[in-house]
Amino acid sequence: MTPADFHLSARAQALKASEIRELLKLVGKPSMISFAGGIPDPALFNVGLFQAACHEAFGGPQVAREALQYSTTEGYLPLRQWIASHMQSLGVPAGADNVLITTGSQQALDLIGKLLIDPGSTVLTARPTYLGALQSFSAYQPRFAQFDAPHATGEDAARLVYVMPDFANPTGETMSRAARARALDGARKANAVIVEDAAYAALRYDGEPLPAIAALDAEGTGDIEATRTLYCGSFSKTLAPGMRVGWVCGPTALIRKLTMLKQGADLHTSTVNQMVIHNVAAAGFDEQVQRIRAVYRSRRDAMLAALTRYGVTDMSWSRPDGGMFIWVELPRHIDAADLLQQAIRADVAFVPGGAFFPDGTGRNTMRLSFALCDEARIEVGIFKLCQLVASEPLPLGAQVPRQELAC
Amino acid sequence: MTPADFHLSARAQALKASEIRELLKLVGKPSMISFAGGIPDPALFNVGLFQAACHEAFGGPQVAREALQYSTTEGYLPLRQWIASHMQSLGVPAGADNVLITTGSQQALDLIGKLLIDPGSTVLTARPTYLGALQSFSAYQPRFAQFDAPHATGEDAARLVYVMPDFANPTGETMSRAARARALDGARKANAVIVEDAAYAALRYDGEPLPAIAALDAEGTGDIEATRTLYCGSFSKTLAPGMRVGWVCGPTALIRKLTMLKQGADLHTSTVNQMVIHNVAAAGFDEQVQRIRAVYRSRRDAMLAALTRYGVTDMSWSRPDGGMFIWVELPRHIDAADLLQQAIRADVAFVPGGAFFPDGTGRNTMRLSFALCDEARIEVGIFKLCQLVASEPLPLGAQVPRQELAC
Repeated sequence: MTPADFHLSARAQALKASEIRELLKLVGKPSMISFAGGIPDPALFNVGLFQAACHEAFGGPQVAREALQYSTTEGYLPLRQWIASHMQSLGVPAGADNVLITTGSQQALDLIGKLLIDPGSTVLTARPTYLGALQSFSAYQPRFAQFDAPHATGEDAARLVYVMPDFANPTGETMSRAARARALDGARKANAVIVEDAAYAALRYDGEPLPAIAALDAEGTGDIEATRTLYCGSFSKTLAPGMRVGWVCGPTALIRKLTMLKQGADLHTSTVNQMVIHNVAAAGFDEQVQRIRAVYRSRRDAMLAALTRYGVTDMSWSRPDGGMFIWVELPRHIDAADLLQQAIRADVAFVPGGAFFPDGTGRNTMRLSFALCDEARIEVGIFKLCQLVASEPLPLGAQVPRQELAC
Repeated sequence: MTPADFHLSARAQALKASEIRELLKLVGKPSMISFAGGIPDPALFNVGLFQAACHEAFGGPQVAREALQYSTTEGYLPLRQWIASHMQSLGVPAGADNVLITTGSQQALDLIGKLLIDPGSTVLTARPTYLGALQSFSAYQPRFAQFDAPHATGEDAARLVYVMPDFANPTGETMSRAARARALDGARKANAVIVEDAAYAALRYDGEPLPAIAALDAEGTGDIEATRTLYCGSFSKTLAPGMRVGWVCGPTALIRKLTMLKQGADLHTSTVNQMVIHNVAAAGFDEQVQRIRAVYRSRRDAMLAALTRYGVTDMSWSRPDGGMFIWVELPRHIDAADLLQQAIRADVAFVPGGAFFPDGTGRNTMRLSFALCDEARIEVGIFKLCQLVASEPLPLGAQVPRQELAC
């Protein structure tokens, strides 16, 4: 008996295994230089704060019983209040009722797909775009079309415009203020909902922050209840992904509908995890973000420098102001999926860019994350990758300590 | 701007707020005698084991970093192995690859709906049945039909047969071995998948356990890979619901598809929660189950005795062998939703039975949970409820301590 023997839904019949999923399994191997996942460096987790927060959540029998018990679908009120303040600091006039806690921001994308997409509905995304968003939305069988500010097409019929304005996954690119305003304007004309995926927004290394689309929207309408932006936030890139705590912020009428959908999806996000994340965020969110920014900035610089040093003719790459990713275009004759097979044998991992295109293009692109490896390993990994791309041996940069090459 | 102004999906347009959800908000009030939710008594949580398990998960920096990091979608291997052993003890020859960890067993129901249901697909359920299952499946727009062993109708076209064989929510009823075999046989003939919701299965107070449908299925086919049962298990009723850890066990071909769907839904269940649940289960699952069984058995007996003492003519109720629920049929002229309004003013809560019928019938029924209150509060609560139902004052039983009536 195989699934082909059962009557599966049309969406399930169309499922394919994800490359990212397979690659995540490699990350655990200590010798691997992984540029693959959008995965924070676990050495940067503030373990002490988590220990203290857990100790508090299980401190006395009363609080422990609350932490272990069922709780409401919308989420733990102190955490929703903390997030509302955080949103206010970004220029979004949110109250706790504008916030739904989700089981990671991935769940927010799934619930939003459930809320808005009927089979055949149009979803506008950048191309390339976040694979996980494509996966979440695909379950509801939309038609994907390209969102391409300033001359977006297909908006008239769109239900949903999905954007990642800051340090996008996978390209690392940031939308200008004008591009944000145009996206909002386009969505208004189509009466579509904008999904602003802000997973990496806190990780800015250069320049001044640009306003969130949710903030521009509220500024324009004068009232969060009159906005059309669903802002998806995450603690995964800043505090810890293993807790699976994220949020979605928007007009209460949509948040209430999302809450009902979440009830059928998993009842609520883990009570104790929400309490712990609240404790950790309240005790040191800003400090943690400052600390990891400094580390990731230096790694981004190291990867850009290594690319400049070893990159061959006909390779080009993005220079992100934040986030975790550099996007590389390889020479046209290179298939990044083939390159990955060779790279893994050389103990280097990345994500072939084709995975991020809804239409199967982008075979000569790759996404490199600079977040997980220190500067020395980045240097070695980029050298190895470029060596695989190059047709002849590359000169090794003087910066690479000899013993590091054994890793 | 209200949701009516956006283009919502057809499923979202059909959403209604749930009565259970509103009721859960009342549970926190200390004066309330709550027979409402299927909620374990938090005083029975083994807080000490959870404290020790958390201490272990955050014990050293290495393990803490693992606990806080992303992990694979299928779940934490030691926990999947523990669950596979548990399934073997139930007669289901499962390995770790037959197990997917879910964010509570509610998520398993959502993922199964996603896997199997196209708009208009037939889903067979008991009537009444678990509201949360109706909610999860409804998002995929099936047609619900009644599953009524031995003379089930509509099976020929069914994609999915949903049953809760042990101590069902909401009726407390248990399917006989013959009824289980018939359900399996019916599903085989229709080539449908059987969803065996075992949320309460560990909580047996009388008699010998009956075989899980998954076990009968494997016995019949000789190979778990040839079965059609997806067994949904939960730690929520035994260890702690606030952790949101459950599982689904079945043939690997279906488990793999569910894993891909889970990836789009929330990437994975909280890493640390899986580690903690594994530690707690390994350290004392059986002892915990023995302990709570003794307490809940006594509460069930107290509620049955109070119903016998105070129940008016034309009231009848189920006598469950386990679980958390007694199902009450009220005199025909009583509307349980109206009764609830009065009961809440008298500080007693329950769930009107109509919520559990897909077709809006069952207005004169109610679900009572005996799990949350001690015997004295059960006595008082049942007295108050029966007093509201009765047309004249009831004599108060000698067993009720006078001071308890003030609660």
